[in-house]
Amino acid sequence: MASGRPASGEDALIARYFRPIAIDPGAFNLDDDAAALKPSGDDIVVTTDAIVEGVHFLPDDPPDTVARKALRVNLSDLAAKGATPTGFVLTLALRNADEAWLKPFAQALGEDATQFGCPLLGGDTVSTPGPLMVSITAFGRVPPGKMVHRSGAKPGDRVVVTGTIGDAVLGLDVLKGGAVAAALAGDAAARQMLVGRYRVPEPRNALANAVRDHASAAMDVSDGLAGDLAKLCAASGVSAAIDLGSIPLSSAAASLRAQGTVGIEAIITGGDDYEILCAIPENSFEAFARQARLAGVAVASIGTFIAGASIPAFLDAQGRELRLERFSYSHF
Amino acid sequence: MASGRPASGEDALIARYFRPIAIDPGAFNLDDDAAALKPSGDDIVVTTDAIVEGVHFLPDDPPDTVARKALRVNLSDLAAKGATPTGFVLTLALRNADEAWLKPFAQALGEDATQFGCPLLGGDTVSTPGPLMVSITAFGRVPPGKMVHRSGAKPGDRVVVTGTIGDAVLGLDVLKGGAVAAALAGDAAARQMLVGRYRVPEPRNALANAVRDHASAAMDVSDGLAGDLAKLCAASGVSAAIDLGSIPLSSAAASLRAQGTVGIEAIITGGDDYEILCAIPENSFEAFARQARLAGVAVASIGTFIAGASIPAFLDAQGRELRLERFSYSHF
Repeated sequence: MASGRPASGEDALIARYFRPIAIDPGAFNLDDDAAALKPSGDDIVVTTDAIVEGVHFLPDDPPDTVARKALRVNLSDLAAKGATPTGFVLTLALRNADEAWLKPFAQALGEDATQFGCPLLGGDTVSTPGPLMVSITAFGRVPPGKMVHRSGAKPGDRVVVTGTIGDAVLGLDVLKGGAVAAALAGDAAARQMLVGRYRVPEPRNALANAVRDHASAAMDVSDGLAGDLAKLCAASGVSAAIDLGSIPLSSAAASLRAQGTVGIEAIITGGDDYEILCAIPENSFEAFARQARLAGVAVASIGTFIAGASIPAFLDAQGRELRLERFSYSHF
Repeated sequence: MASGRPASGEDALIARYFRPIAIDPGAFNLDDDAAALKPSGDDIVVTTDAIVEGVHFLPDDPPDTVARKALRVNLSDLAAKGATPTGFVLTLALRNADEAWLKPFAQALGEDATQFGCPLLGGDTVSTPGPLMVSITAFGRVPPGKMVHRSGAKPGDRVVVTGTIGDAVLGLDVLKGGAVAAALAGDAAARQMLVGRYRVPEPRNALANAVRDHASAAMDVSDGLAGDLAKLCAASGVSAAIDLGSIPLSSAAASLRAQGTVGIEAIITGGDDYEILCAIPENSFEAFARQARLAGVAVASIGTFIAGASIPAFLDAQGRELRLERFSYSHF
């Protein structure tokens, strides 16, 4: 991102909407071709995630929620890697420079950047004839070699998730006017909660230190719990046995499940949760849970990693294994 | 970028095409949610640039040239900032996973990554219903505080550019079947050279050390020499006087200009040059030019930075100022 002559629309757009939120000295006031990250002795963790209109968010999602989602899906990756956010760069592909869209987008982006201590450092704004796309590369710091990997889970470690699972896919169904929308026709608060979980995930950065201190492996749940757990298992060379009844659900999700509106399959394969999935050794669990309580993040132990290469098993109260037709969302 | 279960198309795509080129240890074999940059005591320079089908490249440009252009426009920024490339992350928005496109794309990306010492560290692959888009965030290293800025040019400094100016916009005209294509109908070599300059820029990373050692300000020329010089002047609080006759042209561009096919305005406002524009203090110029010769990069002194806030003046052999209708490309 760079600017100079006020005559250029692109430069004016950057100066007007993004310069006010680029308050970090390494952003050079967005007046240069690059940003700079100062050395601190830490490893710099780099993650990149893009969201595309019509794929990751809906065309009529409010611009402030699009901004927050774009940043938060990246913050969620940093949290799962045990990293402390340190900044991000933004690529914005727009059909046109619409003030009514850009103003709330930039303002919300700045608010989240401040809230999560992850300042805007630079970026690129390009025109596209196609769908709006927001691509963010975010940076975090960890002590050298301390990034938490997907590989590292050991048989006997607990399978732990934060927050609640499945709300986002139910929120998407509300927005699409599906069965969930119909079932919750009389419950505006529940509809609003679920939609909020789809549009504005709650990254668990408050838990990053606890993950770094205790997790043998971690990732964030973005494509669905079942598929992402399978990925973590594959990377770690283990399997897992999950107690379906232990998977944490919001009261809205629990009600919808109890009344038969949605099955557990949809909940554990839906994606967009942006919760942390991690492996916690049994003898660390108490200390981990204590740190999580202090951080204000709910954590639930939902099963155990086991030896083997089979796909994780999701078991009901009778010990019967759930058969899944698909495990997670895939773009192709 | 991350993978695991072979069943997922997205993961298979990453494993097949991108894992083989992600050879840096910080990429973790693309088997995690993030990459890691090791601390070296240097500042990390971060730049991000996206290219969009139909905007920055043509729908029928070969996939290998799209890959090279996407990486090279970022390498060009690193070179202009005096930084040594250290790696990049890739966001690829695709309509579908077409092997005939992805295979040469990934192979060329890997070749350029090796050639420029800038390994693939990670990324994100998403589906889009719209135009193909390649967004890259690239990293470089400079000793602390030594990134070269746009601001810093002083009155009396020489205005210096690398390579030749204007070839890319002429190459675009060839591809679009415009006046340049007609004028060069009998000269396949010239057409090919110009098209090559549009599709595959030559980033001047070999000159990065010389820029860092000697330039008081620098940027790469991406949106047109006239506009980018105006931006550098604005950032530095100076103006400039340019001798139009000193602007380095390829023989093809010089011929087209001499025969009246294109004017100098098109050449200096066309963009996509990806040459370095920099300010070199008079007493450093000889040493800078010597380093450039050793690096094998042609440099030309095209004018002088002067005091004042006026837009840079482009002067012909009679000292008359060229009047420009527009200075550069802007997306909005």
